[in-house]
Amino acid sequence: MPGMELLPTPYLRVDVERVRANVARVAASAAAAGVALRPHAKTHKSVDVARLQLAAGAAGLTVATVGEAEAFAAQGCTDLFVAYPLWLTPDLARRLRALADTGARLAVGVDSVHGAATAAALLAGSGVELLVEVDSGHHRSGAEPRLAGDVALAAAGLVVRGVFTFPGHSYTPDGRAAAARDEAAALSAARTSLEAAGLPVAVVSGGSTPSLEHADTSVLTELRPGVYVFGDAQQWELGSARPDDVALTAVATVVSHAGGRLVLDAGSKVLGADRAAYATGSGRLLDHPDARIVQLSEHHAVVELPGPLPPLGSRVLVVPNHCCTAVNLADELWPATGGPPWPVTARGRNG
Amino acid sequence: MPGMELLPTPYLRVDVERVRANVARVAASAAAAGVALRPHAKTHKSVDVARLQLAAGAAGLTVATVGEAEAFAAQGCTDLFVAYPLWLTPDLARRLRALADTGARLAVGVDSVHGAATAAALLAGSGVELLVEVDSGHHRSGAEPRLAGDVALAAAGLVVRGVFTFPGHSYTPDGRAAAARDEAAALSAARTSLEAAGLPVAVVSGGSTPSLEHADTSVLTELRPGVYVFGDAQQWELGSARPDDVALTAVATVVSHAGGRLVLDAGSKVLGADRAAYATGSGRLLDHPDARIVQLSEHHAVVELPGPLPPLGSRVLVVPNHCCTAVNLADELWPATGGPPWPVTARGRNG
Repeated sequence: MPGMELLPTPYLRVDVERVRANVARVAASAAAAGVALRPHAKTHKSVDVARLQLAAGAAGLTVATVGEAEAFAAQGCTDLFVAYPLWLTPDLARRLRALADTGARLAVGVDSVHGAATAAALLAGSGVELLVEVDSGHHRSGAEPRLAGDVALAAAGLVVRGVFTFPGHSYTPDGRAAAARDEAAALSAARTSLEAAGLPVAVVSGGSTPSLEHADTSVLTELRPGVYVFGDAQQWELGSARPDDVALTAVATVVSHAGGRLVLDAGSKVLGADRAAYATGSGRLLDHPDARIVQLSEHHAVVELPGPLPPLGSRVLVVPNHCCTAVNLADELWPATGGPPWPVTARGRNG
Repeated sequence: MPGMELLPTPYLRVDVERVRANVARVAASAAAAGVALRPHAKTHKSVDVARLQLAAGAAGLTVATVGEAEAFAAQGCTDLFVAYPLWLTPDLARRLRALADTGARLAVGVDSVHGAATAAALLAGSGVELLVEVDSGHHRSGAEPRLAGDVALAAAGLVVRGVFTFPGHSYTPDGRAAAARDEAAALSAARTSLEAAGLPVAVVSGGSTPSLEHADTSVLTELRPGVYVFGDAQQWELGSARPDDVALTAVATVVSHAGGRLVLDAGSKVLGADRAAYATGSGRLLDHPDARIVQLSEHHAVVELPGPLPPLGSRVLVVPNHCCTAVNLADELWPATGGPPWPVTARGRNG
């Protein structure tokens, strides 16, 4: 195990104490509100992080794909919700059945009558449960909330556990509280729709990191935030994480001062290329809050910052805009205090 | 080997005949102009593609990192130029020496006096050669062309093979020819600077896919395009590739028609999140030229298109905006006509 200063850059560094603090803070908040916490594991894809979350009381994990479900189940994380409107094929159904046969407790999402009927045909008798996805204003996937009951009825023969949404329009400045209100309204309507169809509703699931502190826990029974565990430049700029909460950075070397700017060896193949409309750049430097990545290519981040430039050959900590996509680019995360790397267990398991 | 229709989506599909045609076209063009072709292998990270390029007459490969150099050398591609302003450390120098000791012919970039002096100290006697990077208007890395001689002189003891640039400002609508003119002017000035310092110049290297057809081969001795081998939505929209040239697509399933739009299961963790200012969306559909990805998240591409939507459960071919970052997300590329996948040999070798 080399000293961290000998690890070749760029690499992803995890501040384990900050991860523990983030896990504990959100777990305590969910417990105090009396709601279940089912963190989204697509953020970290790491069984080491998942175990911390489960040890802190998480009810299970959320994942985005069947591949992620397989990867986490193989590591003993066996209560898994694929929060995605899966289009079931015989092959996906075979994989889900194989997982269920190992004793995993599984649920998957559907967002249409056709999708629910397909799931019902292919998953009959498997024990896999469904949740109906509804749109709460992000306008990505999800049925209209008032139609959730129709979707659920089309899944006759399967257990429909409840309803879920992702209030992704919380990713806007000053939009966090409003998105949480939309989330609660959509989920309430969806619950009503299922109950009107004569179906019991065990789970009402929402959550995103930016909207988390505003979530209406008189409506929601389950929260599925992901990013809170690491934080990133998006959360920093939205105000939903402090720089002191950021637990994941890319360690980069200053390779050039061309043009009087800082050029780092961490580019989009390490940081990801996410740049939301509200972002002030393509990433931040943890120890230089006034710095901005003004130009990002695959292996270069060009940084403007006031004051003297960190010297050629020195190392800086880059906060990716979006930690979920940065993690998916790495095979391992390196604890800042040394010790063996944490494997990105589900890296690339995106189908 | 399952039929392609059984491969789980999303996955990357390679049209081998189009790859061969792209390789042959650019090889013929370089040969006709009397310049060497050293394709940038960061685009494909694939030894299968590299072998096609070398068989068609490429002088060697360009790579972005020492990790890529190691990956390709291990597969028998042993003439390698790391076209990057490397900041040499003892560890990087050790790795380069180890590669050179296997018989590989290596060169790396430097763009400052300090960087060249560091390389000279750490690479003395290794046989690794240098090229001086100059800025031709992209304003990323690279010395001022008139200072290239100073950089080269600082590398006393090493062979300085010549000068190089990346005219990345060719990635703008209507900017392709102008960037090629800037490239030629900067490289001419850099050559003059080296010659004024009494240094011979064996290689004058440039090239980007958008500027390729405008490259001034009376100045350049070597071209380093990468993307031409696959094409992507950026090249399509810049006019430097036709849709019929596009050889790399993501095969995606239609999972939802929410909101009257198409929702696909290929998101930014498969396509990459690149979206240049000139891009009309986050990717294109190969068989629906009027479609645009208007919203992209990790596992969803939301597509607007005129006319009837492809049905739920059907598959479409998505052209990523930037093929280089899409390839880096995948472990393998699947030939469209069947047969075993092409491994992404250097995936993740970004340091």
